[in-house]
Amino acid sequence: MRTHAPPVNRAYGLGTQKALIPVPMTARQTRRPQRPRHDRRPAPPLEDHAIFGLHPVAHALRNPRRKRHKLLATTNALMRLKEMGVPIDVPVEEVIAGTLSRRLGGEAVHQGLLLECDPLPELSMRDLESADLLLVLDQVTDPHNVGAILRSAAAFAADAVIVTARHSPHETAVLAKSAAGALDVVPLVRVGNLARALEELNAMGVTTVGLAGEADSPLASLEVGGPLALVLGAEGKGLRQKTRETCTRLARIEMPGEMPSLNVSNAAAIALYAAEQLQRHGRPA
Amino acid sequence: MRTHAPPVNRAYGLGTQKALIPVPMTARQTRRPQRPRHDRRPAPPLEDHAIFGLHPVAHALRNPRRKRHKLLATTNALMRLKEMGVPIDVPVEEVIAGTLSRRLGGEAVHQGLLLECDPLPELSMRDLESADLLLVLDQVTDPHNVGAILRSAAAFAADAVIVTARHSPHETAVLAKSAAGALDVVPLVRVGNLARALEELNAMGVTTVGLAGEADSPLASLEVGGPLALVLGAEGKGLRQKTRETCTRLARIEMPGEMPSLNVSNAAAIALYAAEQLQRHGRPA
Repeated sequence: MRTHAPPVNRAYGLGTQKALIPVPMTARQTRRPQRPRHDRRPAPPLEDHAIFGLHPVAHALRNPRRKRHKLLATTNALMRLKEMGVPIDVPVEEVIAGTLSRRLGGEAVHQGLLLECDPLPELSMRDLESADLLLVLDQVTDPHNVGAILRSAAAFAADAVIVTARHSPHETAVLAKSAAGALDVVPLVRVGNLARALEELNAMGVTTVGLAGEADSPLASLEVGGPLALVLGAEGKGLRQKTRETCTRLARIEMPGEMPSLNVSNAAAIALYAAEQLQRHGRPA
Repeated sequence: MRTHAPPVNRAYGLGTQKALIPVPMTARQTRRPQRPRHDRRPAPPLEDHAIFGLHPVAHALRNPRRKRHKLLATTNALMRLKEMGVPIDVPVEEVIAGTLSRRLGGEAVHQGLLLECDPLPELSMRDLESADLLLVLDQVTDPHNVGAILRSAAAFAADAVIVTARHSPHETAVLAKSAAGALDVVPLVRVGNLARALEELNAMGVTTVGLAGEADSPLASLEVGGPLALVLGAEGKGLRQKTRETCTRLARIEMPGEMPSLNVSNAAAIALYAAEQLQRHGRPA
């Protein structure tokens, strides 16, 4: 572990068994602490951020919002990327696997690929004006859950996942692992004040539907014409009062069991599926 | 940690932040190794198995299949159980919280409750003859996922979750935690040969529907009259060839996104919801 790298500079591996490993900061950066005199390793390369692993790198190469600098790849891994039809519009340095393992640490399952790149730019509410389908998470703190939700959001072509700036996980290894590449497919938008963000969505003509077990309407009976935002609260706590009041309407997932509670990522997956079915087939009989 | 307790004897905490902690074996059991002479702790109480935590204990007390011996409870916790309307048909020993913490270890979030009980009896395929809705997991190995699937199965009133005896998780702490009490609501049935179990289900008149991304029919277009089993494979591998061939039919979850893959517990939740919607509203327009 390089203790001189501050926590803002990291390499993300977004697939299964990928680890989040700090990467040395650039020599340009003034915040970098002095290396101790007894540290005789070569100076770290110029880079702020890196992604490793087959699917994470493939998604990052396909993401127009991701600024890329250089791809380090083994011959085999480069061939796999090309077979997958991934556009490689970045300088490539062919390396042996050991080079990546030494750079990332032995734990990182890099699969012969490391992409030097910038972190994704932060989006704001203004970037969501043409969105059709959004997920909104009210203080969902578990990174496993947020990762799995990002993945479901990608599967159902949601335009973004909106989270609260506080009480939401950062882009950690666990979140990135659970997202399995979806961080480069569905933007995560952080907002300071969730109720205000919901008001902005309402004003933009988005129907904001809060999922709540005590709601009268089942999700499947909603009539939704235009853009839709599905709003989910944390397990146990549910939607906060202010969130609940700001949603256009509330709806529940019909569950006949004696233990009618779901993991929040499962509730999100069902809500996304139900919204997709409504858009595809209209209201069920 | 009591190293003399063999791994078959454990206490399960099934709720959030509950830990799985070995409990001393009974003095009757012959497999118990001799304690070393220098071990001067008092002899462990007579018990094989224990469950702790509010919701896990409440579900175990409500489960007619769970053989119960004694409830150890703090005054407050006993009051909470009674307020929840949980039937307490077992001898009760009132204790202070520290007694449970000492017995289970400081990590266990026992919430003032410990139920001495037997492990659940194993069910066989013959016990499923009156089932309406089943889940079948083809070598899903991750205990987080199997736990979350049990919880969704409980929410949607599935009669059982069938898993392969091999390549499935045991009732570990992680599974129990993720299931959040659902182990006492939905039986887990282990079968040695999954294809044979599916053939038995087919012979019993159950429609076995395998979830597969490449299937022609969307799940929502199925016409299902009688009992239904939803069959899911492991992430990445999917259904094994033999499983696929033995299912009555295959169906896919309609996903419009560019990353049309889901976490297996999310896929199971969607499949359960879709089956519930079909039974409730019939085939969508």
